[in-house]
Amino acid sequence: MNLSERYRAIRARSRQLAAPLSEADCQVQSMPDASPIKWHLAHVTWFFETFVLERFEPGFAPHHPAYRVLFNSYYNGVGEQHPRAQRGLVTRPGLAEVLAWREAVDARIGALLADTPDPDLAALVELGLQHEQQHQELMLTDVLHLLSCNPLAPVYRPRPPVASVSPVALAWVTPALPADAQGGGGLVEIGHAGGGFAFDNETPRHRQFLRPYALANRLVTQREWACFIADGGYRDPRWWLSAGWDWVRANRVEAPLYWRRESAQLESWHLFSLHGLAPIEPDAPVAHISCFEADAFARWWAAQHATPGLGPARLPTEAEWEHAAAPLERDAVPGANLADPDPGHAPDRALCPWPARPGVAGLQQLFGDVWEWTASAYSAYPGFSAPPGALGEYNGKFMVNQTVLRGGSCATPRDHIRASYRNFFPTDARWQFNGLRLACDRLD
Amino acid sequence: MNLSERYRAIRARSRQLAAPLSEADCQVQSMPDASPIKWHLAHVTWFFETFVLERFEPGFAPHHPAYRVLFNSYYNGVGEQHPRAQRGLVTRPGLAEVLAWREAVDARIGALLADTPDPDLAALVELGLQHEQQHQELMLTDVLHLLSCNPLAPVYRPRPPVASVSPVALAWVTPALPADAQGGGGLVEIGHAGGGFAFDNETPRHRQFLRPYALANRLVTQREWACFIADGGYRDPRWWLSAGWDWVRANRVEAPLYWRRESAQLESWHLFSLHGLAPIEPDAPVAHISCFEADAFARWWAAQHATPGLGPARLPTEAEWEHAAAPLERDAVPGANLADPDPGHAPDRALCPWPARPGVAGLQQLFGDVWEWTASAYSAYPGFSAPPGALGEYNGKFMVNQTVLRGGSCATPRDHIRASYRNFFPTDARWQFNGLRLACDRLD
Amino acid sequence: MNLSERYRAIRARSRQLAAPLSEADCQVQSMPDASPIKWHLAHVTWFFETFVLERFEPGFAPHHPAYRVLFNSYYNGVGEQHPRAQRGLVTRPGLAEVLAWREAVDARIGALLADTPDPDLAALVELGLQHEQQHQELMLTDVLHLLSCNPLAPVYRPRPPVASVSPVALAWVTPALPADAQGGGGLVEIGHAGGGFAFDNETPRHRQFLRPYALANRLVTQREWACFIADGGYRDPRWWLSAGWDWVRANRVEAPLYWRRESAQLESWHLFSLHGLAPIEPDAPVAHISCFEADAFARWWAAQHATPGLGPARLPTEAEWEHAAAPLERDAVPGANLADPDPGHAPDRALCPWPARPGVAGLQQLFGDVWEWTASAYSAYPGFSAPPGALGEYNGKFMVNQTVLRGGSCATPRDHIRASYRNFFPTDARWQFNGLRLACDRLD
Amino acid sequence: MNLSERYRAIRARSRQLAAPLSEADCQVQSMPDASPIKWHLAHVTWFFETFVLERFEPGFAPHHPAYRVLFNSYYNGVGEQHPRAQRGLVTRPGLAEVLAWREAVDARIGALLADTPDPDLAALVELGLQHEQQHQELMLTDVLHLLSCNPLAPVYRPRPPVASVSPVALAWVTPALPADAQGGGGLVEIGHAGGGFAFDNETPRHRQFLRPYALANRLVTQREWACFIADGGYRDPRWWLSAGWDWVRANRVEAPLYWRRESAQLESWHLFSLHGLAPIEPDAPVAHISCFEADAFARWWAAQHATPGLGPARLPTEAEWEHAAAPLERDAVPGANLADPDPGHAPDRALCPWPARPGVAGLQQLFGDVWEWTASAYSAYPGFSAPPGALGEYNGKFMVNQTVLRGGSCATPRDHIRASYRNFFPTDARWQFNGLRLACDRLD
Repeated sequence: MNLSERYRAIRARSRQLAAPLSEADCQVQSMPDASPIKWHLAHVTWFFETFVLERFEPGFAPHHPAYRVLFNSYYNGVGEQHPRAQRGLVTRPGLAEVLAWREAVDARIGALLADTPDPDLAALVELGLQHEQQHQELMLTDVLHLLSCNPLAPVYRPRPPVASVSPVALAWVTPALPADAQGGGGLVEIGHAGGGFAFDNETPRHRQFLRPYALANRLVTQREWACFIADGGYRDPRWWLSAGWDWVRANRVEAPLYWRRESAQLESWHLFSLHGLAPIEPDAPVAHISCFEADAFARWWAAQHATPGLGPARLPTEAEWEHAAAPLERDAVPGANLADPDPGHAPDRALCPWPARPGVAGLQQLFGDVWEWTASAYSAYPGFSAPPGALGEYNGKFMVNQTVLRGGSCATPRDHIRASYRNFFPTDARWQFNGLRLACDRLD
Repeated sequence: MNLSERYRAIRARSRQLAAPLSEADCQVQSMPDASPIKWHLAHVTWFFETFVLERFEPGFAPHHPAYRVLFNSYYNGVGEQHPRAQRGLVTRPGLAEVLAWREAVDARIGALLADTPDPDLAALVELGLQHEQQHQELMLTDVLHLLSCNPLAPVYRPRPPVASVSPVALAWVTPALPADAQGGGGLVEIGHAGGGFAFDNETPRHRQFLRPYALANRLVTQREWACFIADGGYRDPRWWLSAGWDWVRANRVEAPLYWRRESAQLESWHLFSLHGLAPIEPDAPVAHISCFEADAFARWWAAQHATPGLGPARLPTEAEWEHAAAPLERDAVPGANLADPDPGHAPDRALCPWPARPGVAGLQQLFGDVWEWTASAYSAYPGFSAPPGALGEYNGKFMVNQTVLRGGSCATPRDHIRASYRNFFPTDARWQFNGLRLACDRLD
Repeated sequence: MNLSERYRAIRARSRQLAAPLSEADCQVQSMPDASPIKWHLAHVTWFFETFVLERFEPGFAPHHPAYRVLFNSYYNGVGEQHPRAQRGLVTRPGLAEVLAWREAVDARIGALLADTPDPDLAALVELGLQHEQQHQELMLTDVLHLLSCNPLAPVYRPRPPVASVSPVALAWVTPALPADAQGGGGLVEIGHAGGGFAFDNETPRHRQFLRPYALANRLVTQREWACFIADGGYRDPRWWLSAGWDWVRANRVEAPLYWRRESAQLESWHLFSLHGLAPIEPDAPVAHISCFEADAFARWWAAQHATPGLGPARLPTEAEWEHAAAPLERDAVPGANLADPDPGHAPDRALCPWPARPGVAGLQQLFGDVWEWTASAYSAYPGFSAPPGALGEYNGKFMVNQTVLRGGSCATPRDHIRASYRNFFPTDARWQFNGLRLACDRLD
Repeated sequence: MNLSERYRAIRARSRQLAAPLSEADCQVQSMPDASPIKWHLAHVTWFFETFVLERFEPGFAPHHPAYRVLFNSYYNGVGEQHPRAQRGLVTRPGLAEVLAWREAVDARIGALLADTPDPDLAALVELGLQHEQQHQELMLTDVLHLLSCNPLAPVYRPRPPVASVSPVALAWVTPALPADAQGGGGLVEIGHAGGGFAFDNETPRHRQFLRPYALANRLVTQREWACFIADGGYRDPRWWLSAGWDWVRANRVEAPLYWRRESAQLESWHLFSLHGLAPIEPDAPVAHISCFEADAFARWWAAQHATPGLGPARLPTEAEWEHAAAPLERDAVPGANLADPDPGHAPDRALCPWPARPGVAGLQQLFGDVWEWTASAYSAYPGFSAPPGALGEYNGKFMVNQTVLRGGSCATPRDHIRASYRNFFPTDARWQFNGLRLACDRLD
C-alpha cells in the first residue's frame, strides 16, 4: 500500500468505527477523560489541516476559522483550546458537517499526495495516520464507557459465537540476557531500533542493565481476578500501595471497572463490553483495571505462590517487557488479538480480550488483548529530546506521574503496535483495555 | 377547545419546540440544573403514562419497563430515578424512539379521552398538560443554556425585525388596599380563588395583612443594569446580601448570565439569546439574573433615588405582587409578551423580553417578558397540605431555601400563567428568564 | 446594675467560660462554621475597640494596628477581614496577649463609662454587650464541637447529679387570637414593642394575620426522636423536603449530631455533651438537629397521630411562636433552663437541655433548653431598614436562605432572651442547641 | 556516642525544636500535609512504644490505650489511625501530657538500653532515632508553614548577622564513569553499600548504566529564579509539563511558595522564612519549589544557554546524582549547611539555605541547603523487598507517583544524610526546603 492508499484506508476505518452509532452516541462526552466520537472524528482532521495542509498547501485557508481552537486538543504551540471537559457541549457543527470537513480535507491531502510527496510531507502524513490510529482505539474505549453509563446496556457490536478452550496454566519464561562478566544480569538495548515509524518517546535507543528475570507465559485471567476479589483483595491494605488504598476507599472500588454483580448474594460476576452485558469469561484476560489494582494483585499473588529460584511476583519493568517481546514481534503480531483495519476480516471475537491458546510454548498474548501495566514510570529515555514546535508537545510534556503500558490491546489497530511502543496512563485510569502480566526475579 | 383538542395542541407544541434542533442538540445536558430536550420530551410522556394510563387504562402495560426509572424526575413515590446529572448520558433510546413513544401514548390517551372522561381522569390529564407546559418553558431555557456553551453562538430562531420605541420612564403605582380601622394597611386575600386550574401551592386562598406600598410601572431595563455595572455594582459589598457577596466573589460574577463584553476596553455589552449574539437592547427588561443580583440592584437603586413619601426601593413581596396583578390579569395576559402555542401567530420578537410600551397608564409587563424575583421565600400557604401519593411531591417538597417569582416570561405559554401562579428557584439560579420590578413602601 | 457594672460582669463571664480550657483548646477551629475560643475573646473586644473607642475616645489609637483586620468578622464597612476558615491558624497573638488586650480595652471603656455616658455611647456599649453574650453562646457550642472531634470524649464541666422526673405527655395548647369579623383568625402584632434592648431585626413591630393554631405544651424529647430513628425515619423519603433528603443521603445522616451508637446491634444511643459521653436522656428535649430533621420529624409524627379538630403536626411560624410566648415572657424566663451569668448560681444541670416538669399547665420550655426551629424563613419585617454604616451589616445582610429559631437555649445568657428575639441559621446547621416544638392548625 | 547517649541526644533535640513555640503553636495543623508539632512529638514516641517497648519490654502495657490509634500515622499493620487531616483537632492530651509520655517512654527505653542491647533491639532503636530525625525536619517545615499563614509574619528564630559573599558563576562538572567497551557511558553501582544505617529503600545496591553527564557546580539561586519570573516563566506553557501547566493555572502560582511581593508594581520580592519576612537573598539557593517548577526552570534555562559539547540543561537522575555525590560524601557533609543536633554549635545562618562559597573547585552544596529534585520517579530498586510486618510499610508502599529528591537540606540533621539517601515527595509539594541543581548530557 502506498501512502495515498494507506491514508484512504485508515481514514475510512475511523468512519467505519462510527457507523453503528447514532448522532447522539457521537455527541456525548461521558466523562472528562473521554471525548465524544464526533470530536475524535474532527480532531484527527484538525491534525491534518493544522500540521500538513497549513504548511504544505499553497494558498492554504482553513475550512472554518473557529475549528482551529475548537478541535485543538492540547497543543499550546497552536494556540488556545476549547476546554477539554466541555467537548460534549459543542452540538454544532453537527456530525454531518464534521464528516463533510473530513471529506474536504481528504480531497486536499489526496491532491498533495498525488505526486511523489516531499519526505517531510510524507513523514507528517504518516504521523497524522498514526495519530488517527491512536484515536481509533480511544473511539472504542470512549464509546464503551458511554454505553456503560446507560442502564439499558446497549450493544455496540453483537458478540460472535465463542469456541471454548481449555485453560492455560501459568508458567514462567526466562528471556536470555547477554553474558556479564560479573554474572547476574547484562546490558540490553531498548528503544526503537530504526526502520519504520516510531514515536519520539521510543527514542533514543539506549543501553540498560537488566538482572535475570522471568515473565508469565500469559496474561492474568478473569478467573484469577475473581479469586482475588473472593479472597478479600479489595479490602486488605496489605496488598496495596498507600495511594492505591486511598483510591480504593475513596472510590469504593471492589472490582474492575465494567464488572457487575447481578445480585449481592451471588458471586456471579458479569462484564459489560462492546458486546453488551454477559457473564465474565474466566479464561480471558482481565481488563479495565488501574495500575493500583494490577500492583495489588501481583502482591496478593506473590503471597499465595512461592517458586524455588524465583523472587516474588511483581509487575515487569518496561525494559524487561521490551527485551522479551522484541525478538517475538515479527511472528506474534500477525496472529494476535488486535483490531483489524478491515472489520470484514476481523477474528471471531474482536474487540474483547480472549483466552490464551493451549499448547503454545513460551510467551503469548504479548501483543493485543490488553495493554500490560508495567512497574515503570513514564519518563524520558536518556538523551531524549522533543522535536521543535507544537509537535514537540505530542508526547514529551506528559512525562510525569504516569505509568507505561506495553503491547497493545484488542482495540489497537494491528499495524500500529510494536515492541518498543510506549503507551502511558495515570495510575488510576481504568477505561482502557488495561490488564497485566506477572514477572519476577530469577534468583539462581 | 375540549380536552382532547387541548391535549393534542399542547403535545404538538413540544414537538414544534424541538423542531429546529438536531438529534445532538436534543441529547446534551449542559449542566446539572438543565435537562436534555430529549429527556423533557420523554419525561412529560412518562408523566402521562405513569399518572394517567397506569391508573385508568384497562390492562395497562408500560411501553418499555425501563422507562419508569429512566424518565422519573424526582417522584420517590414512584420509585428509583436515573441520576439527574446523568440524563445526558442516555443516548438510547434515541430521539426517534422517544417520539414513537410519544405517539403511542398520545394514541392511548386519545382513546381514554374519546368518551366524556371521568372527572378524575380529566383532572389528571389537565395536570399532565400544565406539567408539559412547564417543561416547554424549560426546553427553551435549557436549549438557550446549551447553545450559549458553544463558541460559535448558534441561533435557535432568527431574530425578527425590531421596531424601535421610546424609553418609558419609571413611575410608581399604588395599588388600593382595603380600609383598615387603624389606618396604614389592610387585609387582602391571596391564593387561587377557584375557577380554572391551579397548582396545589397556590392554595388555600387566605388573608394577609399588607402595608401601603407602590410598584414600579415597568420592569428594570438593560440600560439600568448597564449603569449598575458601570457604577461598580458588582464590586461593592454595600449592595449585597452576605450570601450574595460570597456568591459574586466565588463565581467572579460581573454581569447577567448571558451578557458578554466584545472587548475588555469597551463598555459595549452583548447578549446571547435564542436569536444568537447581538448588542444588548437598552430598553428591554434585564433577564438571567439571580435573586442576589436583583436584591443588590434594588439596594443600589435606592441609594441613588429618594422620593418624598416613599420608602427605599426593594423587591416586592409575593402578596404585594399578587394583590396588584390580580385585578389586571384578565386584560393584561392576552397582550403580554408570552410564548404562544402557535408559533405562526407569535409576536415579532417572541422568545426574548421586549421594551415597555410608551403611553401606557399604570402597571405593565406584569405578565410575560421575565419572571419577577420577589422578596418572599417559597413556603407553604397557611393551611396548605400536599395531595396524597406521589403527586404530593409535585410542589410541596421544595418549600425551603427557594424564592418565589411571579408573572411568567417570554418563554411561558400564554394560557399557562395567572396572578396566583408561584414559580420558585434557588437564589442563585440565572438560566431562566428571571428579572425584577422595583417596589417600595408608601410612607404617607 | 448600672452599665459599668453590667459591662464588667458580662466581660468577666466570657473569661469564666474559657477558664476550663487549655491554650490549645482555645486555639483550634474545628470547622469553618465554628471559631476558636481565643478568636471569640478577641473579636468581641475588637467590637468595643472599633465601634466604641474609635468613635468616643479622644486621641484614639488602636491597641495593635493589625487586629482591625485580624479580628473583624464580617463587617465590610470596617474593611478587609482575615479569612473565616483560617481563624484557627493565627497562633500569635497568643491567649495571654488577647487577654491583656481585653484588660486594656476594659480599662479604656471603663474610663468612658465613669461619668454618666452619652446616650449614643451607652447604646453602643449595650450593643457590644449583647454582641458579647451572643458570642458566649457560640463559645459553648464551638467548644462542644471541638471536644466532640476528640476520640477521648473530654469533659468541659462535670455533670451534676440528676433528679429523675416523670415524663410529661404531649398536649396541645391554643393561644387566644383577637376576634375577627369573618371568624377564623385575627390580626396580631409581633416585633419588639419597645422598652429595653432589641436587635434591629426585631423591628418594626407590625401586624400579621394568624389563623387559629395550637402549640405543643413541651419540646420534642429524645425518646420521641429515638422512635423516629427506630421507625426508619432517616431512610424514608416521604418525611423529607427534597433538599433535606439530598442532605441526609449526601451526609449519611442517621441521628442528631452528637448521638452515637455504642454498638451497631444495640439501640443504645449515647449523647456527647459538655459533660462528656453518656446515654441519652429520654425525657430531655432533643437538640443538635437541622431544620430538615425538625421538619421531617413533624411530618412523620403527623402520620402517626390524628386529633379531631386539629390539622396535621408541623413547625410553628415565628409569628405563632411569638404571639404565644410574649404573654408568658415575664414569668417564664426567670425559671427557664438558660445559662446564668454567674455560674455559681447555675442550676444543677446547666449547659444541657432538661426534661419538662410534670404538673405544669400550659406551655413550658418556651425559653431556654433548645432554640426552636420555626417554619419561617429569615427575612425583613415589613418596613425594616438596617442602620447606616458598618453596624447595618449586623443582621440585615443575612436575610436570605436561613430559618428563624426562637426562645433561646441552655447556652443562652438568661438576660439575653425575649419573646421577640429572632435567631437564624441555615437549614443544615446542627452544632447549636437547636430542637423543636410541634404546632398545628385548629380546624374547628 | 553509644546508643543510649545517642538516644538521649536525639530525643532532647526534638524538645529543643519545640522550645520557641507556644502550646497553641504546637497544636495547630495548618494544612493536611503538615502535622501539629505536638503530634510529631507524640508520634515519634508512639513509634518507640509500639515497635520497641511492645516487643522487648517484659510485661509491656501501653502508657495510654487510646494513643495506639491516635498517634499511628499510616501503619495499617498496627491497626486503625486517627484521620490525618484531623490531627490538629486533638487538643487533649495537652502538650504537657505528651511531654510526660515522652519522659516515661525515655525512661523505659533507657532501662532496656542499660545493658548491652540485643542487636534486634538496637536496630529498632536506631530506626526509631532515624525516624525521629525525619520528623525533626518536618517539625521545622511544618512550623514554617504554620507561621507563614499568620499575617503578622512571626519569627521562629531571629536571623543571625550575614556576611556578604561574591556570587559564584555556574560551571559544569563532569563525574568520571567507568570505561565502557562501546564508549559513551558505563556501568555504575548505586544504593547503600553497607556500613552504617540505611533505609530499606536504599537497597539493594545494584548496577545501572549511565551515559556521560555533567552537573552544575552549585544550586540554582534566588537571583536566577527571579529572572525566570521576570521573563514570564510562570506564564509560558513552553517550559511546563502538561500536568505542571494545569497546576500553575489551577493554583495561580507565580513564585516559590514563600515568596511575596511587597507591592504589585515593584519586582522587590521578599521571602518568608523561619527568621520572618525579609528581602530575598539573590545568591542563596531557591527553595520551596515544586518538581513542576524545577523542571520548567531547567527547560527555560536550556533555551537561554547553549554550551558546545553539552546537551540541554535538565534535572539529574538520582543515579547520576548519587554517582557524583558518593565520592564526596565524607568530606562534604561535615561542612555543609545542615541542621546541627546542638543548636549552640549551629552555623550563623542555620535553618535557611545559604550562598555557594566562592573559590571552591568542583561540586558544592550537594549536601544540605536544599533537597534537590531529580528526574527520577520514586520506585523500587531492582530486587527490593520490604521487610515483613508493619515496618514494611515504612517506605515501600509510597513507591508510586512521587519523585526522588537527594542531598538533605538546611533542616536535615547533620548525621542523618548520606549519598544514597532517597527522599521523595509528590511533584506538587512545596513546603519542604526543596530546590534544584541543573544537569546535562555530555555529547562529546
